[in-house]
Amino acid sequence: MNINEQALKMHEEWNGKLEITSKCTVKSREDLAIAYTPGVAEPCRVIAKDKNEAYRYTIKANTIAVISDGSAVLGLGNIGPYAAMPVMEGKAVLFKEFGGVNAIPICLDTQDTEEIIKTIVAIAPAFGGINLEDISAPRCFEIEERLKKLLDIPVFHDDQHGTAIVVLAGAMNALKVTGKTKEDCKVIVNGAGSAGIAIAKLLLTYGFCHVTLCDINGIISKDYKNLNWMQEQMLTLTNLDNKNGSLADAFVGADLFVGVSAPNIVTKEMVASMNKDAIIFAMANPTPEIMPDLAKEAGAKVVATGRSDFPNQVNNVVAFPGIFKGALEGRATQITEEMKLAAAIAIAGLVEAQDLNEDNIMPQPFDPRVSDVVSNAVKANIRK
Amino acid sequence: MNINEQALKMHEEWNGKLEITSKCTVKSREDLAIAYTPGVAEPCRVIAKDKNEAYRYTIKANTIAVISDGSAVLGLGNIGPYAAMPVMEGKAVLFKEFGGVNAIPICLDTQDTEEIIKTIVAIAPAFGGINLEDISAPRCFEIEERLKKLLDIPVFHDDQHGTAIVVLAGAMNALKVTGKTKEDCKVIVNGAGSAGIAIAKLLLTYGFCHVTLCDINGIISKDYKNLNWMQEQMLTLTNLDNKNGSLADAFVGADLFVGVSAPNIVTKEMVASMNKDAIIFAMANPTPEIMPDLAKEAGAKVVATGRSDFPNQVNNVVAFPGIFKGALEGRATQITEEMKLAAAIAIAGLVEAQDLNEDNIMPQPFDPRVSDVVSNAVKANIRK
Repeated sequence: MNINEQALKMHEEWNGKLEITSKCTVKSREDLAIAYTPGVAEPCRVIAKDKNEAYRYTIKANTIAVISDGSAVLGLGNIGPYAAMPVMEGKAVLFKEFGGVNAIPICLDTQDTEEIIKTIVAIAPAFGGINLEDISAPRCFEIEERLKKLLDIPVFHDDQHGTAIVVLAGAMNALKVTGKTKEDCKVIVNGAGSAGIAIAKLLLTYGFCHVTLCDINGIISKDYKNLNWMQEQMLTLTNLDNKNGSLADAFVGADLFVGVSAPNIVTKEMVASMNKDAIIFAMANPTPEIMPDLAKEAGAKVVATGRSDFPNQVNNVVAFPGIFKGALEGRATQITEEMKLAAAIAIAGLVEAQDLNEDNIMPQPFDPRVSDVVSNAVKANIRK
Repeated sequence: MNINEQALKMHEEWNGKLEITSKCTVKSREDLAIAYTPGVAEPCRVIAKDKNEAYRYTIKANTIAVISDGSAVLGLGNIGPYAAMPVMEGKAVLFKEFGGVNAIPICLDTQDTEEIIKTIVAIAPAFGGINLEDISAPRCFEIEERLKKLLDIPVFHDDQHGTAIVVLAGAMNALKVTGKTKEDCKVIVNGAGSAGIAIAKLLLTYGFCHVTLCDINGIISKDYKNLNWMQEQMLTLTNLDNKNGSLADAFVGADLFVGVSAPNIVTKEMVASMNKDAIIFAMANPTPEIMPDLAKEAGAKVVATGRSDFPNQVNNVVAFPGIFKGALEGRATQITEEMKLAAAIAIAGLVEAQDLNEDNIMPQPFDPRVSDVVSNAVKANIRK
């Protein structure tokens, strides 16, 4: 059986990857009187007086919703809410297994921005946080921004920020390995959707000074037609000398390429045109923008991908479980830029100096230290 | 410690009565490749072609949402969505412990009928059923009716139908004990909210011919002012000779009193004015409409309450877990009148003839046979 057949068989066997289990036993009338009526009325009364008590007496303390409208699921595109469920359940599994966070998958039967926002606001009381997932750009930007203003619990779009955090962590270590500096490092981000834009933003926030966004038609500049509002806005921060041209043109003299785009679109010639000790993050899944062996042959010093079968796997499972674990434990109301930077620094720091080399810039997804280190970094940056 | 103090302490210890647990282990890269990317894409693709496959590959198969707007919680009234959570979590515990059904509590930050309907429709894809809970009348009737038309999964308002099913089950056995017939039995239902109206309806569906609804101001008749649309509608089925008067007037010559109203509002004199071998269901919680000893002294033959410390506890925990268990297993799209009647008959049937007497008309909530018997009754009545 290949991996697809195995996955299908196992998903049928699981018949849903999650279970809702009870922390309390109800084996007797006495149990029932405590967990349910009449005893349950007492925590209700206490919360009715102060809704913050919900964090003491209900699942809100440690439960988030993983919410998608099924509009941009993995590489599968707009497959809708029913077909998105296996991914959201998988995400919930990872939240629990890696971060100890209870996560409930919710797939929405609407792709209308206003309806999505209203629905999430309406269901928010039960949850301590909202993880948005696989919502297409540019709607995802507006939905997240609006929800952050409307809700008093953290809202985090993992495709954007989880990805950006792990890329920044890897980039920090790649700079150390290559001796490059964030101030001088010329960065190309290929793919101007949710992940690409968030990566560009977080690299800039960290202090990278030269970032250029590209997409399928080449360099995004003021002369580019049909940009969405977020891509327009990014032009005030990226490609400041307003270069034009193809993706190949962007490569010339670049130091760091970050691809969140499509398989096999980067050639050896493009990599060869980069500065010495070039860094390649080729994260298209499952087939990267360029295979690591080709990139190395063309002169790249560090090559990272999204895959577990090559060195330097960039996988946001090292970020999101710890992010929400920390946010919930510290009762954060927002995931701020400071927390994201701190999380990236914490992840990068898990690769110790003596182990750091061009084939080892990322911690392993299964490194048991990851979620606590990230969670502590987040908690240390909660503004009170 | 009294029960309230104990309940508060335990709720703090639990810090949420539910946990989301994973059915699959993700201890290795291979595990991750099956439960998450890249393998997870395969069930996604299959469901994208046919959304019914969601029942094979996702939690939809065995997961319902328990949804409230916090507008009519227990006897506590309109305490809002945060304070309603302990009750909804408790309900989810009971669904799992008694029926093996995974239930997710969702408390809505809106009490607007249209917004509630839209929100529930929007989040429905992940769920195999919707259990509405503690939504005030008459909005609950419209919300349930509209959702039944809009959704292709069962929608069930437990305060209405769960209560009605167990009352009907108890009434069936009380008729046997007293030798009364449904055709001749004169019924008063006191409380014309969600439970009272649903009880009256189901008793009529079963074949009771004389049902009169009362509320705090007395008998509901055509002369009664300020009825809501559902109470108006009930007048086409109840109080057919259009009697007027107080609750005490309604008692004269009645056979069966069903109270879903307020503590201590029924006197011995009222009970004494009923027909011989009167039946009293005094289900106000925690203090019944009349205490069992007083009702018995006044001549009642059968007295049931909602309490576990008196004989004949009428508790809808014997109904709702099995109802959804059966509906999910049989992939029902609706909970029909036939299913409700079959469930009531099944529950009544658990008290075997030789054990049936005035102090034993209801099965015990912890009777391990209950949920299977109810579930099988529901499944046997699914229209294909």
